[in-house]
Amino acid sequence: MQFDEQLLNKIVLEVQRQLKEWQSDTIVVGVSNRHAHLCREDLNALFGAGHELTVLKELKQPGEFAAEEVVTITGPKGSIFNVRILGPVRNKTQVEISNTDSFVLGIKPPVRESGNVEGSPGIVLTGPKGSIKKDEGVIIARRHIHMPVEYAKTRGIKDGDCVCVRTLSGERQLVFGNVLARVSDRFALEMHIDLDEANAGGIKNGDRVRLVDCGIVAMG
Amino acid sequence: MQFDEQLLNKIVLEVQRQLKEWQSDTIVVGVSNRHAHLCREDLNALFGAGHELTVLKELKQPGEFAAEEVVTITGPKGSIFNVRILGPVRNKTQVEISNTDSFVLGIKPPVRESGNVEGSPGIVLTGPKGSIKKDEGVIIARRHIHMPVEYAKTRGIKDGDCVCVRTLSGERQLVFGNVLARVSDRFALEMHIDLDEANAGGIKNGDRVRLVDCGIVAMG
Repeated sequence: MQFDEQLLNKIVLEVQRQLKEWQSDTIVVGVSNRHAHLCREDLNALFGAGHELTVLKELKQPGEFAAEEVVTITGPKGSIFNVRILGPVRNKTQVEISNTDSFVLGIKPPVRESGNVEGSPGIVLTGPKGSIKKDEGVIIARRHIHMPVEYAKTRGIKDGDCVCVRTLSGERQLVFGNVLARVSDRFALEMHIDLDEANAGGIKNGDRVRLVDCGIVAMG
Repeated sequence: MQFDEQLLNKIVLEVQRQLKEWQSDTIVVGVSNRHAHLCREDLNALFGAGHELTVLKELKQPGEFAAEEVVTITGPKGSIFNVRILGPVRNKTQVEISNTDSFVLGIKPPVRESGNVEGSPGIVLTGPKGSIKKDEGVIIARRHIHMPVEYAKTRGIKDGDCVCVRTLSGERQLVFGNVLARVSDRFALEMHIDLDEANAGGIKNGDRVRLVDCGIVAMG
């Protein structure tokens, strides 16, 4: 059989191009340490009436920032100090901790998407100007990916879908199942995991993961 | 086309039998909190000459036990108290901690299989009868599965192989890649993970995982 060297070169180049495209189709990871979102009323109670949060660092999601302000959170078994406030102010106060933290505090928060705090455990928050007791609002954040609409659309993903991603390498390589897709053009492409998930996978802030076929791993 | 109802029933029963067999082919998980294994010399230094460890609880691996004895471990940044000693006495002292613990202590241990401590960070151990400074010996345990020979053989697994397993359900479903297979007839079938891995996957001691095809997830 004869073979066409020119055609072969074309094929090799196309394979290399597709491989490169696939290799570069990754999602950056943001590792969330414990933090709190405050409503206006609670910000007043903890830091004084009319207090405005000071931006320490802009986050990757547009408009979101880590504030200079920190609080102490206290549960029935113990306290955790220097818990970062994330801004801007929200409609409802919400504290996001890890499973590890839950043992220190002595509470059992559910794994939930942000904003869904109904029936979750309460906590005491203490700031420089006062303490408040919340009856609910502590969750373990469900891992999720913020996706712009176009990104999700080209991959057949809708808001609220579950996807799977895998880490790219390492001794502690993981595939995360049941990852919530949150699709909006207000979002930058980014996966959020908590510190337990980062530690379990040897994942650092800024590392990358790749979408994988859920059917492979999510059955049964 | 005619169909043979008797044959169809046979097929249905066989499919059900195989599904049941597959569903029941799971591996129990043991979650390891931070702990220390001590050599004879170090046990003497920490608890007094000739001290014998007291069995608090037999572990699943034959001959292994959690001792009543605990020590304090101290790194450059902090201490962790009540670290359980696991018996029996070993040839070499080894401290196994989590990534989370490493931040408290201020050291950066490698992820390693048990026994391989060369070049790992040191630590100070303190017991009721004294303190010792180890120049190496702190690791983050690499996740692994203890397998009896027959179990491994029927699944085409050899000692030292990497396998993948997945958790069976839950909001934090995971697939663990790069799981070390340790094959010996001295072992009971059991997967060992640390507390970070357990917290990340919502896994409790005694939960079960299932072997999955590594090719699916470990590429690249």
